Amino acid sequence: MQGIFEPGRRRLMHCAAAGLLLLASGCASMRPDPLPSWNEGAAKQSIVAFVAKVSTPGSPNFVPVDERVATFDNDGTLWAEQPLYSQLLFAFDRVKVLAPQYPEWRTTEPFASLLKGDLKGALAGGEKSLLQIIAATSTGMSSDEFATIVTAWIASARHPRFDQPYTSMVYQPMVELLAYLRANGFKTYIVSGGGTDFMRPWTEKTYGIPPEQVVGSGGKVKFETAAGKPVLMRLPEVDFIDDGPGKPVGILRHIGRRPILAFGNSDGDLEMLQWTAAGSGARFMGIVHHTDAEREWAYDRQSSIGKLDKALDQAKASGWTVVDMKSDWNLVFPFQKK
Amino acid sequence: MQGIFEPGRRRLMHCAAAGLLLLASGCASMRPDPLPSWNEGAAKQSIVAFVAKVSTPGSPNFVPVDERVATFDNDGTLWAEQPLYSQLLFAFDRVKVLAPQYPEWRTTEPFASLLKGDLKGALAGGEKSLLQIIAATSTGMSSDEFATIVTAWIASARHPRFDQPYTSMVYQPMVELLAYLRANGFKTYIVSGGGTDFMRPWTEKTYGIPPEQVVGSGGKVKFETAAGKPVLMRLPEVDFIDDGPGKPVGILRHIGRRPILAFGNSDGDLEMLQWTAAGSGARFMGIVHHTDAEREWAYDRQSSIGKLDKALDQAKASGWTVVDMKSDWNLVFPFQKK
Repeated sequence: MQGIFEPGRRRLMHCAAAGLLLLASGCASMRPDPLPSWNEGAAKQSIVAFVAKVSTPGSPNFVPVDERVATFDNDGTLWAEQPLYSQLLFAFDRVKVLAPQYPEWRTTEPFASLLKGDLKGALAGGEKSLLQIIAATSTGMSSDEFATIVTAWIASARHPRFDQPYTSMVYQPMVELLAYLRANGFKTYIVSGGGTDFMRPWTEKTYGIPPEQVVGSGGKVKFETAAGKPVLMRLPEVDFIDDGPGKPVGILRHIGRRPILAFGNSDGDLEMLQWTAAGSGARFMGIVHHTDAEREWAYDRQSSIGKLDKALDQAKASGWTVVDMKSDWNLVFPFQKK
Repeated sequence: MQGIFEPGRRRLMHCAAAGLLLLASGCASMRPDPLPSWNEGAAKQSIVAFVAKVSTPGSPNFVPVDERVATFDNDGTLWAEQPLYSQLLFAFDRVKVLAPQYPEWRTTEPFASLLKGDLKGALAGGEKSLLQIIAATSTGMSSDEFATIVTAWIASARHPRFDQPYTSMVYQPMVELLAYLRANGFKTYIVSGGGTDFMRPWTEKTYGIPPEQVVGSGGKVKFETAAGKPVLMRLPEVDFIDDGPGKPVGILRHIGRRPILAFGNSDGDLEMLQWTAAGSGARFMGIVHHTDAEREWAYDRQSSIGKLDKALDQAKASGWTVVDMKSDWNLVFPFQKK
């Protein structure tokens, strides 16, 4: 995924070299479009205008580099969350692997339904019980062992609809946006309801976001000494849910600064967007609206996963940027053709 | 405090300019000592040798920039913790300010002793009850309000022995070490038992460590809407104690990478040092040993604050670097004269 940025970089370097012979301003017109997968339109314009006004010295909305904090939800905002959250599909695979060690799962929900292949039954308990499944299948080992398990899974598992690795199920326009923000001095963070330790093994390679800039949900962890070696053991107890009103809390804890730009796609991002909007100075609040059943999926107010209802109302009322996937993006996944 | 680095920087810039006329390697000998407050000796040598081996491309111990994570305890490692933790002195001042609103404090320990000026009585409960005092005096307001209170206190309060602002009660050799590590590609973090939100308002100016690189203890926080505006309310409930075995947990949560260098000064840092030592490749574990009653304080195995006993034994057994404040530092606080 990192290779995506390289042609643009090379062109920029060429441009910089050429700039030695030209006026500095003469180079701007030679720069490649940093957001080539975004169609020209209001959404792209609002992004470019915001970045220009906060990063131009002397602008009344100028924001120092240190304060250019951008937070992104992950599921449904940076990568696909349909037909199910990827972490849940990971957990399902883990249930199958671990089932022989837990015979009681055959008669305990949601495991029993899962093992029978009845996804609907397994999902009846909603998002909180989904996180419980994750806790049950992702604990009882050290943090290092868990990272190894996730790394192996993400390298081998394939998405059920597109038959692609999950790290290819990312939105190319959002990957471009992350790089564009970083090129303009922003620090980009993930603030996701997903598990921190599920995301960290692959976010740097996939999005250019290092482990220390990934904020997510997590279970309790205990420092222990095993065979003379210190380990951090993952306990089957939820510690923090980084969703809904938990997102601004996670931002405070991990970042300690209020974002000036936030992007989400569901009601679980509403409080993060409100918290971002309530700061002083220039702000950007964005929502990815899933409107493209052909290239991705179309869902919003009625969806059990990624429900977008209240946040869509507030976006319209408050003038936040709503990205219409179908009309605003000329490419969704990097493996698709323009 | 930031001005401390400037003379050295100016010299480096001068050196760089001169370098245009010289061989690149010719400039090394012109570089000012990046650790001028450290006496020549084993401690300084071990630091310089470690930094050289992990940052020299081609070295068998080379570590990529992204993985150069350095974690520092704060109280007693970066700034003074005697006669009491500064955050406790802050909390005492808050108790006096808030006492009229809490008449029950007059008969409830540890507040009753505090209000009578009996510090020994107030401190009888040990470190955990100290954190409870902090929670009781630092909650019930929003995170923004708390930051304002801390900022006002740190700008006005003076240390009882030295009559200096607390931000001057920092160890000049450690401030130099932080800058030296950053100049060599390290990301420097605070990992402290102190409150995250107590430290963040001043760590960037004082140490060059931004809020997002401060890991500490903290209470629970709740997202609420007050007068139509979202706020993060500080609740009187401890959420996380970043001390002892909590330090590696805090490192995992916030950083997601194992440090290659860690510095502490007490048994509360032992697990962080063990966790750092247990990684593969080159590692540096350092302990500040308080041996200078004249310029600072002398304390270790018998001290109720900053007790250094088990960690000192392990440092000696494992060959960790023990910094003898009296002999290794030619300057302790920046306001003292060499």
